[in-house]
Amino acid sequence: MIDVLPADAAADPASTIRRFDEGVPTLDVRDLGAARGDGVFETIGVVGGYPQALDAHLSRLASSAALLDLPAPNAAQWRHAISIAAVSLPADRQGGLKVVITRGVDGGVPTGWIVATPAEGDFAERETGIRVVTLDRGYTSDVAERAPWLLAGAKTLSYAVNMAAIREARRRGADDVIFVSSDGYVMEAPTSTVILLFGDRIVTPRTDIGILPGTSQLSVFEFAHSRGLRTEAALLMASELTAADAAWLVSSVRLAAPITSVDGVEVPVDAELTRAMNAALLARQN
Amino acid sequence: MIDVLPADAAADPASTIRRFDEGVPTLDVRDLGAARGDGVFETIGVVGGYPQALDAHLSRLASSAALLDLPAPNAAQWRHAISIAAVSLPADRQGGLKVVITRGVDGGVPTGWIVATPAEGDFAERETGIRVVTLDRGYTSDVAERAPWLLAGAKTLSYAVNMAAIREARRRGADDVIFVSSDGYVMEAPTSTVILLFGDRIVTPRTDIGILPGTSQLSVFEFAHSRGLRTEAALLMASELTAADAAWLVSSVRLAAPITSVDGVEVPVDAELTRAMNAALLARQN
Repeated sequence: MIDVLPADAAADPASTIRRFDEGVPTLDVRDLGAARGDGVFETIGVVGGYPQALDAHLSRLASSAALLDLPAPNAAQWRHAISIAAVSLPADRQGGLKVVITRGVDGGVPTGWIVATPAEGDFAERETGIRVVTLDRGYTSDVAERAPWLLAGAKTLSYAVNMAAIREARRRGADDVIFVSSDGYVMEAPTSTVILLFGDRIVTPRTDIGILPGTSQLSVFEFAHSRGLRTEAALLMASELTAADAAWLVSSVRLAAPITSVDGVEVPVDAELTRAMNAALLARQN
Repeated sequence: MIDVLPADAAADPASTIRRFDEGVPTLDVRDLGAARGDGVFETIGVVGGYPQALDAHLSRLASSAALLDLPAPNAAQWRHAISIAAVSLPADRQGGLKVVITRGVDGGVPTGWIVATPAEGDFAERETGIRVVTLDRGYTSDVAERAPWLLAGAKTLSYAVNMAAIREARRRGADDVIFVSSDGYVMEAPTSTVILLFGDRIVTPRTDIGILPGTSQLSVFEFAHSRGLRTEAALLMASELTAADAAWLVSSVRLAAPITSVDGVEVPVDAELTRAMNAALLARQN
């Protein structure tokens, strides 16, 4: 675990970083991250000691911080801290970095940290796939524009609803969730992005309906272009999910997990395309 | 700060409690309270070393825990810990206890703690009042029934939206917020309950629209009965706010703050009733 102290642009990034062993208590319980879920985060995949899609993650971290009126993260400092955290992981295993910035203790300065975690298991779901259920996210698709204080589109620490939705999926015999807006549009999963294949088109939901821009989704679109597929961000109705020729949830550590069913209705799996997609995601050097 | 270790009914409550000085880091950053806002809390007012409305707070804590699929809190243990935390506060000042239960580190046991904080200042707003703005909470009034995974009605650590709404109020030149459902009903404030006076009726929004049962609101209703006022939980349209003969936000530490305006429209203040209400709240011995 790496503690990242607040630093201005003039600071030497190395001087702002302290390393702690796993499990050592480092956080004040009065920290608003712990007390109010008041902070932002990114989960960055690490392959061979390399933090993937780093620019996209840092860009989204800055965007989330702005939506929460937090100071802009010092990108040079975070790049330095992330590079140190990434090489702390076993080079022969995939892993993830959880990068967090909170509002700190009330009246104080933001708190920052990174937790590096080697991946457990072999990501069998990249081959075997996942069953998903759709769950109402409660918000209409114009929520981000109409009510920015609801923080739609910010990746905040307030993820109790995301976790409750995954528990609800398990209760329903599924593995994961696709959130649907209360006016019927496909949004995102609690910790991943929805990607669909229709013929030769790879489609993901438009982010202006109040969802996060996917960092892995950007890489999937690059992969799709290299395969001659067209790509599109679109408004998708929930009823279109089971009409797809293939569907995935993509995220930074699990990468592309093919969806085998939506609410119990089978969805085709394109095993060859999925394998190529994950190979491309694993090979990323940016 | 008091750390409350998990304990079954057979444990001696005293053996489950550890005291820490303020500011000592005690929390593992991997704790899901800090990493996911995945936990529940109560803020309990303390007057003269006495934790107020304790039964109501413990009841709501248990209800929030159940909504999050957390184990039921051990009431005897929490009573013991709360009594110790309460007497740690200066006896001549009002104060508050933040009581927290998180899901703990993934795969582990829940984490529990209490932070005792003496009140700052003299609660001038109990006399001078507060300006509020209404903000859309994004959910329709049937959210709790339709989509329980959205955790409406649970007091979770995922309060980033509540905090963002208060910042939006400040930007609009106000002090606090009344959330309104997307179908137009008065809900609650980010950290307090709405109470209105119409003639001889004291009215609060019904909790089945996805809001928290107010602990201080229960005491206000008892006070109202003692004054010969009728009380009612009702569906209230946002347009009714400025038709009230008086209005308050009530919470455990600030107690009853009279509302002086809603979205810039003046609301009458009943100074005598407000004073009597706060005197009754301060005098509570249950």
